Amino acid sequence: MADKGLPLARRVAEVAPFHVMELLARARELEAQGRSIVHMEIGEPDFPTAKPICDAGIRVIETGNLFYTPALGLPELRAVISRFYRERYGVEVPASRIIITAGASGALLLAIAMLINPGDEVLMADPGYPCNRNFVRMMGGVPAEIAVGAESAYQLLPEMVARQWTPRTKAVMVASPSNPTGTLMPEESLRAIASIARGRGGAVIVDEIYHGLVYENAYTTALKFSADVFVINSFSKYFNMTGWRLGWMVAPEGCVRELDKLSQNIYLSAPTPAQHAALAAFAPETLAILEERRAEFKARRDFLVPALRGIGFRIPVVPQGAFYIYADCSALSRDSFAFARDLLETAGVAITPGADFGANAAERHVRFAYTNAIPVLAEGVKRIGEFVGQRQ
Amino acid sequence: MADKGLPLARRVAEVAPFHVMELLARARELEAQGRSIVHMEIGEPDFPTAKPICDAGIRVIETGNLFYTPALGLPELRAVISRFYRERYGVEVPASRIIITAGASGALLLAIAMLINPGDEVLMADPGYPCNRNFVRMMGGVPAEIAVGAESAYQLLPEMVARQWTPRTKAVMVASPSNPTGTLMPEESLRAIASIARGRGGAVIVDEIYHGLVYENAYTTALKFSADVFVINSFSKYFNMTGWRLGWMVAPEGCVRELDKLSQNIYLSAPTPAQHAALAAFAPETLAILEERRAEFKARRDFLVPALRGIGFRIPVVPQGAFYIYADCSALSRDSFAFARDLLETAGVAITPGADFGANAAERHVRFAYTNAIPVLAEGVKRIGEFVGQRQ
Repeated sequence: MADKGLPLARRVAEVAPFHVMELLARARELEAQGRSIVHMEIGEPDFPTAKPICDAGIRVIETGNLFYTPALGLPELRAVISRFYRERYGVEVPASRIIITAGASGALLLAIAMLINPGDEVLMADPGYPCNRNFVRMMGGVPAEIAVGAESAYQLLPEMVARQWTPRTKAVMVASPSNPTGTLMPEESLRAIASIARGRGGAVIVDEIYHGLVYENAYTTALKFSADVFVINSFSKYFNMTGWRLGWMVAPEGCVRELDKLSQNIYLSAPTPAQHAALAAFAPETLAILEERRAEFKARRDFLVPALRGIGFRIPVVPQGAFYIYADCSALSRDSFAFARDLLETAGVAITPGADFGANAAERHVRFAYTNAIPVLAEGVKRIGEFVGQRQ
Repeated sequence: MADKGLPLARRVAEVAPFHVMELLARARELEAQGRSIVHMEIGEPDFPTAKPICDAGIRVIETGNLFYTPALGLPELRAVISRFYRERYGVEVPASRIIITAGASGALLLAIAMLINPGDEVLMADPGYPCNRNFVRMMGGVPAEIAVGAESAYQLLPEMVARQWTPRTKAVMVASPSNPTGTLMPEESLRAIASIARGRGGAVIVDEIYHGLVYENAYTTALKFSADVFVINSFSKYFNMTGWRLGWMVAPEGCVRELDKLSQNIYLSAPTPAQHAALAAFAPETLAILEERRAEFKARRDFLVPALRGIGFRIPVVPQGAFYIYADCSALSRDSFAFARDLLETAGVAITPGADFGANAAERHVRFAYTNAIPVLAEGVKRIGEFVGQRQ
């Protein structure tokens, strides 16, 4: 039909494809030809799911009883997450406000569907996670992107939010730690932004998807000082459960009923094997494994930041969390997409060009993911160093 | 925030809650008080997932390698489904057109997001599956519901589609077997409707979610005579994999690239444990189990239709598939919702009121699901018979 001219909805053209997918497809082609490729583009932990989590998943599958759960999620899992907020953050979050979703994607879709009318604006940082823009566009909203740089650690500042807020603004989205920059938003900023939004009758959506993967800094959840933010979290990153497709949202109490209705329609319920498996995600033996992995991520970051600086990348802010380094490559290239493409073809290293995260100085930036062991990262750095040396 | 007056998006109010959820919540309350409730409201097979499917799921979880799959799905699973179309229907459907989704819900969301602009109309039968209306509304579209009755076996007729098609109509949705009526659309109708839509530049979305659960009639897939329909299918019903959250869509070849882009944004990928488990869904030993279960569903239908008729329900069309009976209760009550509520309170039987499926004569209809063993259904019939007898 499309090939015969079936007109697609406008949102299809408005949703930008991920440039990294083109590079990834090319990388797979090269690998099929026998080339060795070092992957530094993939936003997925390289660790297998921890054994206690797998064991819990297997136990429920052995029963064969894999029916729908309530749309808001397995009550036991909501209770376990509530306890986790108490134990890790010292915050009381009643289970009734915790909604289990099909990945953080499901939570973002729910939050945007809940809040955004066609024409409504949503403030967000550029660079930022590309799906956020696309969820807003899918619901007819307008992503109002605010350029952020190293000066604010690539985070929104309260004065930016206040200045850019218009009568059409309906919400502001923040992420801490951020993808692609790995930086944290200071608690004072988050408090101030929440207060600005509240004063103007808007919502705050806080992406805490990379919580747990923070390396030195103290950090807390936005739930500590506000019961009326929407917090998005995920079992994919810290908990290494990407393919299980499980996340959660903490919503203001007054929205839960409507979110229940929307989730019944949008996805019925999150995957049952994943929900049972996740019951083991907060057990001490699981957390011990995850904390070892966090230490490994930290070691990778501590290796990679100076190594990349040593071959000409500018990294003005050392990332404090997640598993990304957002690097300025302008000393090496004026076109980060061409740079990424050439690097892949010539040196066999895959990275993500800045264009996937927004328009703000995208041509001067690339993102490295340290989702590989240090020897692999070292090989990547060696190849990039040679590639850069040959071009100069 | 909502409780302090955060305005929610208009679509939230437009999405109707499922009345059955209120009844289900009340049923759970009564059960918690020790009352015995016969559940005839639940649209979910009562069978556990077949062992070969569970075993395949367990095998992949034992490896711990539960990473994202490509957004379009595990290539092996797409290939297996392609082979299934060849073997079961004698139709060539290339794997490249098969998109694995997070349940049929994910497929419906993708299809509507792909096709429908705000203000576009989508033709559909009333009564029909309630989420269809809500997906259309969520994307700003207008569900244009066409009243259907027993005369057309509750299915759209080509002349209805031709008559109701307006310049704003963008697509027509059909379901065979249908939820809530269990009826099939004749192949000639489907062909004619596809031809009308094609002639007017619109799309056809065919819900084949209950395929496999058809009891005597021959039936085929819309893919047999058109490569430009969108076919939605699911592992939930025939394959008894509800909680795994897995479905698929077959799309016109020219749309796959754009659907890839949308699915990358909306859900990243369908659950990995489910995709590996589903590789075993088409194995002969699995199909043997599923065919036994189909025979059991048929026996339940053959028990329940005359039993319900015997206590005063009109069932003008014997359902040919799915696990539902759509019954006219007007000889027993003028308000099917009040009837369902009273039946639950007085007799402890839960059924679904017609209002969940549309507005067309909803007050005269209820839906029975035969997702329980015959002795349970018999107890339900006995209780309903006594309830009805006392009221007369």
